[in-house]
Amino acid sequence: MELIYKGKTKDVYEMDGGNVLLKFKDDVTGEDGVFDPGANTVGLTIEGAGKSGLRMTTHFFEKLIEKNIPTHFVDSNIDEVTMTVKKAEMFGRGLEVICRYRAVGSFLKRFGAYCEEGQPLNAFVEVTLKDDDRKDPPINQDGLSQLGILSIEDYKKLEELTKEISGIVKDELALKGLELYDIKLEFGRHIETNEIMLIDEISGGNMRVYKNGVYISPMELEKLVLA
Amino acid sequence: MELIYKGKTKDVYEMDGGNVLLKFKDDVTGEDGVFDPGANTVGLTIEGAGKSGLRMTTHFFEKLIEKNIPTHFVDSNIDEVTMTVKKAEMFGRGLEVICRYRAVGSFLKRFGAYCEEGQPLNAFVEVTLKDDDRKDPPINQDGLSQLGILSIEDYKKLEELTKEISGIVKDELALKGLELYDIKLEFGRHIETNEIMLIDEISGGNMRVYKNGVYISPMELEKLVLA
Repeated sequence: MELIYKGKTKDVYEMDGGNVLLKFKDDVTGEDGVFDPGANTVGLTIEGAGKSGLRMTTHFFEKLIEKNIPTHFVDSNIDEVTMTVKKAEMFGRGLEVICRYRAVGSFLKRFGAYCEEGQPLNAFVEVTLKDDDRKDPPINQDGLSQLGILSIEDYKKLEELTKEISGIVKDELALKGLELYDIKLEFGRHIETNEIMLIDEISGGNMRVYKNGVYISPMELEKLVLA
Repeated sequence: MELIYKGKTKDVYEMDGGNVLLKFKDDVTGEDGVFDPGANTVGLTIEGAGKSGLRMTTHFFEKLIEKNIPTHFVDSNIDEVTMTVKKAEMFGRGLEVICRYRAVGSFLKRFGAYCEEGQPLNAFVEVTLKDDDRKDPPINQDGLSQLGILSIEDYKKLEELTKEISGIVKDELALKGLELYDIKLEFGRHIETNEIMLIDEISGGNMRVYKNGVYISPMELEKLVLA
């Protein structure tokens, strides 16, 4: 198999038959050795983080597929720490769609003059460009449309899917007494059918989850969710 | 008259009868002694800048009033470098609404991966919070609504007024062979009628204007426009 992309937390291989293989790594995002799901640099390596992330991702993608959410998931191999997915085309060079239920992280940094830390938000959705050099800038609907990245119609679809998926994850976590504060999703278009689908992963690495007001790290979270 | 606010480029006094007096100063925004309409610090003092800004503002507000755009303008006294305006209530602690016709300034800094410098934009509108400590962060419609700053309905009104006003300024400049690249507007609510109206000023200090691809400074601009 040919390596087609070396990502921060995953490597991507081209498979025969048009699918793609994701190899989850033990590298996690953060800064100065501290894990931060909002960071866009690799901050540290945690043994077993890749396998843990893959278990969570498999769990949530299977839940979403049951609920007829379009995703790129085909199957996963926990021992090999790999996931087979449908090949997707990105929007531009990639977008992140964030759904927030509590004011923390970059929301609080930017809008702290108007909110308290941890203040509830009603599934606030925003889109950022994946662009490390420019620190993943937020961009509004009009900007996405005018720069030819996402049409107004596709924006609405992404927003709707984001609220639906985030709601499913939130409810699932609530069953274990856990609270989802925010989550970062990625979408792409199926390379053949053009359908918009959820891509990348859903794990502790791209969400902030708290239990009784205390932050739960990705690997602890996996144990609590899959227990 | 009582000084009620000391701004970066204007001081504000309470008048008898419910209006407010703005005293334009010779301080302009910028950094390290270089004028920059996108900056939020006072960069330098230019003799006559206040009077020049007031002349331009008076000119444009009079044009807008002819076209039935609601503004806070009552009258101005060029010799005293003051403008009498209706008293307004801000949205939150103040918003800036930016309308862009060319990709320059902070738009280019953030979205440069997807555009060329100076690329045409179709009256792109975005809102930023006036918050020096947090570097005037852009905020989307949902954020403004959820933080209680601006309802969805008022957002639409502001967006519509912004496009209309910016279009009038753009057309007016075009008559003199000048091209408007971007402009920053402020709005408030009339303290008695609650009507949304344009506040602050319209001068070279809050727009970028070019002539044959060359940037025109605020004071040169005033001479060209009022010639």
